[in-house]
Amino acid sequence: MASIDSPSTSPNLALAAQAAILALPVTEERRMADCIRVLAMDAVEKAKSGHPGMPMGMADVATVLFTRFLKYDAADPRWADRDRFVLSAGHGSMLLYGLLHLTGHAGMEMEVLKNFRQLHSAAAGHPEYGEHPAIEMTTGPLGQGISTAVGMAMAERMLAARFGKSLVDHRTWVICSDGDLQEGISHEAAALAGHLGLDKLTVLWDDNHISIDGDTALSFSEDVLRRYQAYGWAVKRVDGHDHAQLAAAMAAATRSKKPTIIACRTIIGFAAPKKAGTAGSHGAPLGADEITGAKSALGWNAEPFTIPEGLKARWEEAGRRSAGTRRSWLKRLAKHPMRVEFERAMAGKLPENWAEGLNALRATFATEKPKIGSRIASQRSLGALVPAVPEMVGGSADLTGSNNTDVKGVPAIGPGNFNGRYVHWGVREHGMAAAMNGMALHGGIIPYGGTFLIFADYLRPALRLAALMHQRVIHVLTHDSIGLGEDGPTHQPVETIASLRAIPNLAVFRPADAMETAECWELALRRTEGPSVLALSRQALPALREDATENRSARGAYVLAEAEGARDVTLIATGSEVQLAIAARATLAEQGIQAAVVSFPCWEIFAQQDEAYRASVLGTAPRIGIEAGIGFGWERWTDAFVGMNGFGASAPAEKLFEHFGITAPALVTAAKSLLGQGPNTQGQSK
Amino acid sequence: MASIDSPSTSPNLALAAQAAILALPVTEERRMADCIRVLAMDAVEKAKSGHPGMPMGMADVATVLFTRFLKYDAADPRWADRDRFVLSAGHGSMLLYGLLHLTGHAGMEMEVLKNFRQLHSAAAGHPEYGEHPAIEMTTGPLGQGISTAVGMAMAERMLAARFGKSLVDHRTWVICSDGDLQEGISHEAAALAGHLGLDKLTVLWDDNHISIDGDTALSFSEDVLRRYQAYGWAVKRVDGHDHAQLAAAMAAATRSKKPTIIACRTIIGFAAPKKAGTAGSHGAPLGADEITGAKSALGWNAEPFTIPEGLKARWEEAGRRSAGTRRSWLKRLAKHPMRVEFERAMAGKLPENWAEGLNALRATFATEKPKIGSRIASQRSLGALVPAVPEMVGGSADLTGSNNTDVKGVPAIGPGNFNGRYVHWGVREHGMAAAMNGMALHGGIIPYGGTFLIFADYLRPALRLAALMHQRVIHVLTHDSIGLGEDGPTHQPVETIASLRAIPNLAVFRPADAMETAECWELALRRTEGPSVLALSRQALPALREDATENRSARGAYVLAEAEGARDVTLIATGSEVQLAIAARATLAEQGIQAAVVSFPCWEIFAQQDEAYRASVLGTAPRIGIEAGIGFGWERWTDAFVGMNGFGASAPAEKLFEHFGITAPALVTAAKSLLGQGPNTQGQSK
Repeated sequence: MASIDSPSTSPNLALAAQAAILALPVTEERRMADCIRVLAMDAVEKAKSGHPGMPMGMADVATVLFTRFLKYDAADPRWADRDRFVLSAGHGSMLLYGLLHLTGHAGMEMEVLKNFRQLHSAAAGHPEYGEHPAIEMTTGPLGQGISTAVGMAMAERMLAARFGKSLVDHRTWVICSDGDLQEGISHEAAALAGHLGLDKLTVLWDDNHISIDGDTALSFSEDVLRRYQAYGWAVKRVDGHDHAQLAAAMAAATRSKKPTIIACRTIIGFAAPKKAGTAGSHGAPLGADEITGAKSALGWNAEPFTIPEGLKARWEEAGRRSAGTRRSWLKRLAKHPMRVEFERAMAGKLPENWAEGLNALRATFATEKPKIGSRIASQRSLGALVPAVPEMVGGSADLTGSNNTDVKGVPAIGPGNFNGRYVHWGVREHGMAAAMNGMALHGGIIPYGGTFLIFADYLRPALRLAALMHQRVIHVLTHDSIGLGEDGPTHQPVETIASLRAIPNLAVFRPADAMETAECWELALRRTEGPSVLALSRQALPALREDATENRSARGAYVLAEAEGARDVTLIATGSEVQLAIAARATLAEQGIQAAVVSFPCWEIFAQQDEAYRASVLGTAPRIGIEAGIGFGWERWTDAFVGMNGFGASAPAEKLFEHFGITAPALVTAAKSLLGQGPNTQGQSK
Repeated sequence: MASIDSPSTSPNLALAAQAAILALPVTEERRMADCIRVLAMDAVEKAKSGHPGMPMGMADVATVLFTRFLKYDAADPRWADRDRFVLSAGHGSMLLYGLLHLTGHAGMEMEVLKNFRQLHSAAAGHPEYGEHPAIEMTTGPLGQGISTAVGMAMAERMLAARFGKSLVDHRTWVICSDGDLQEGISHEAAALAGHLGLDKLTVLWDDNHISIDGDTALSFSEDVLRRYQAYGWAVKRVDGHDHAQLAAAMAAATRSKKPTIIACRTIIGFAAPKKAGTAGSHGAPLGADEITGAKSALGWNAEPFTIPEGLKARWEEAGRRSAGTRRSWLKRLAKHPMRVEFERAMAGKLPENWAEGLNALRATFATEKPKIGSRIASQRSLGALVPAVPEMVGGSADLTGSNNTDVKGVPAIGPGNFNGRYVHWGVREHGMAAAMNGMALHGGIIPYGGTFLIFADYLRPALRLAALMHQRVIHVLTHDSIGLGEDGPTHQPVETIASLRAIPNLAVFRPADAMETAECWELALRRTEGPSVLALSRQALPALREDATENRSARGAYVLAEAEGARDVTLIATGSEVQLAIAARATLAEQGIQAAVVSFPCWEIFAQQDEAYRASVLGTAPRIGIEAGIGFGWERWTDAFVGMNGFGASAPAEKLFEHFGITAPALVTAAKSLLGQGPNTQGQSK
């Protein structure tokens, strides 16, 4: 038998190895794996689009996992104590759909598979969270799955620490590809998983030596397992088509005191007579000849999209494997003293009276009128919220003292110790954001995490996925403008807010003072349909509000200061620039120009308000915006804009506001110009 | 002497180790290192802002490097064959400024240091490319420096392969921090460096066990050196305050056949009596007491901002160390047969007649009128350009066949073989983009690289730095809309183009057909002041242009089809939607509505045109935009918009355009509505 362990596989070598495997006696479990293979071939062929090679290569691995190890019950895919399974190599989506179909999951009938990659099909091109309850997350962008799984595994440990092993005791399994391991995000997440000792996390790596460009040796020659050992992981290497080897490695993983990665040496497109072991089987239909040849090689005689009854029955049995375990768990849950609290947290419902402390804080802000950075106001808000909302878990990408994300008396988790509610993520923004997604997806945790606003760029792909998956994750992004001062243009987010506002279903909050900060925290926590960003100032901001009765940020924008009499102009501002609008309003009034000031903490929410409310806020007078960022997107709301035209600079903050002309006098001048009363500096600044 | 090799350092241990080091006899080289320390303390103190701890901790490492190893001549910091030095831990900028001052670089006089972190000072908060000719790149966002340095080292090898060792034979040195190594981007770059065998790259890791949140053990417990061994690097561990150990390790690195990482165990804030070895010395002025104490511990008696003459002379000698080497090199260059070509490439000037092939291709496109994806038109453009521009180096993040970035007959580089002009970057978008920056910064190479447009999010921080540093790097980003079809919302960039347009000094091109694609390639290559993105379609696009004489994309937007008579409405479109505007124009004309069609391949360039030209293109009639992306930012140009309102879906492309209402009939309806002639669907779509 030709070795499939050679570092680089020529197609011929792969075909020889394949022939040797196919010459072995066919077991029932091999046949079960073949079910996955033929469904993948058939569905991709019918769709004329998709990735057959990975499901064909990983069918044996998946079969061993789903028939012998994974704890799940097809009758209740949302069972809270199920094992989590993440298909990080999301392009191999037919592997997952095939498994869900075969194990008898409702909603993944054969008709659905026949509509693979068609509009409104639950069997979308890549697994999409929400399309089917057994899809744990949306995958496809490489590196996200494995990193999100780290967050799921963290959530499991933290909830087990809170609710006990009788309610929370499950594993997290990942199938990943070479590409997942090349992506930087997976490095961040794997390093953290090793650091924390997430022993219930197992990664099954599809070590197929093939990437889209060809042999992985073109670009990938590192010793992956040695690298994972360096992270503190247990490692194994197995023949990914040898069920006994696979079972032994998975069993060892369940006993390991460390997270485990198992390199499963596989042949991509296994069984295809010519394309097996080549990039040709990766991302396109195999074609009729190859499919005929593959089925013949497998000894498969059934029609397309047909699974012989005996095999289907055996698979459905596998889908019921843990049904008894689930029933026992339900009994334990029913009697558990923390049942109500567990169910509440897992359902994502906030505790009763969760807002009491925050409301008290708002009342304090109204009387105290603190002049503090909104990052400090955020910390005070957290001090009111975190004790009241036990599922809130905070953290920072090594900027705790700058992001002010910690709360006194709330301990951090650490290696082997999950009895805490704070995470020192390290300088790993992207891994943090993905793991936060995993915590939210797992359920039972509302994650918030901090870094500088500029580094939203580092975590953007994970944040986009949170928006796509409708997950409540909250990013506390401080140092939100040139107001951070001396650190200079690398740290000054001039276009970052605009770029975040562009992401669908992401709420970007930029509060103007302590009161609005508390209000925005309330809104972010209430927002169950997607992620939120709190863009917060480093510098102190004066209190602009004295009324605490109503959450005025709740409609996205509101008239903070109406004009005396009819409006001549409306000044619209966010965050640290609202104070400038208030000052400009006073100056304009002295000159006989009546200006209203609109505070605009959240565009996304305001855009969803009814037209009457929006009209009442925006008014009919000319409008001018001010924000210490670029004007991109402001044209939607205003006729003119005062802000940045490019990158920032290194200097003390107050010098920078002067230098870039983001001041109350500049706003006065621009407003007058807009009204035809000044030198011609009118119009959008770009 | 207390060990400083303990895995976790308590402040007391660090102070004991520090005392032991300070008790050793003071050498002249230690004194030279102290010069760096006192300048860092003084400058940060005067600025009341900055990071003294890192320069104080790494002063010994930097002294050994700059006095014994680094090839540079303070008299000519842009000497082409100098060693490149990258301060990846950019927050320690005073280390670099101190070194440049001490070695006698013009433009970094003591007055400049006294203006550390002040407006217009070359000594900005973080090193800023362009502020001083010896600053090789802008650093600060962690992970960028080390990854960009990989590109510099690649450039050196590739230029050496082209021009020979007599002209190109230098090393790349990096000082990096724990944070650099935690960031995912550095994993991508380090894996590639190991794969390629970049033996002239040396990383000096400031292994100080301190992060902002406290001891690195809070989040960082991996075995870094074992990890780098897994990548194929040589590794060393030394006492970062022991000059002999440092010199031995650096000497070994210069002989290594692999890239080398040297873990330099240091005490952050070295010499500070209380704050040494703690996060307290990292990111804030030490305060008068600590500075007095530190200077006393060092035996330093000079006034602030004063370097004793003898030490300054010794440092300036170091700054001249390689002056003779440079003179010899200049002589070799003068006689070299490839001198003119070398100087041209290093100056970033395109070859004469570089555009001839491209012009011929444009003429071909005019007559042939090919219906091809713009990614295919891009590949044909590359076929005309790459042979004519020998400094163009292409690549793809493992999507060569999809991005169409390869050119027949142009070989790829590989391990130990740099005689090529194509890079298989692996699934490492961020590392690729940073290394492309490094190639451009090195000079002599114009890098272009491909991935899917959606994965611009993965490389965004590096792209932003390219814009900030004014580097000509070209990103070929294909599959630019829902037009990619079945892969679904994870792969469909609906907000990506908007988010890229928001980045200052980035030109985003979205060509409408083959002709515009060739035009945009010409513009991207001519654009020396910053990076470009080419957003290209997967799907075939009909030819819309027959004229090849003028590059009509060169002004950013132009009237592709004027109205018959006075304009009733102007339809503005980009990329694959221009064909829809053309079709809608015909339908509208049948209904008596005269529409002009504006093709708008590049917003950034159009915004820079004079007002008269802009007015001539935009016209005075109502304007409606169409683009298969969200409308964010379009309000600047149009009164209404047809496009996306949120994420995409998985289905064949033509179904998606129907489903999301991005069609010629939808545009007709919207245009009529805008003109008050249809049902009330008017206005911006969001």
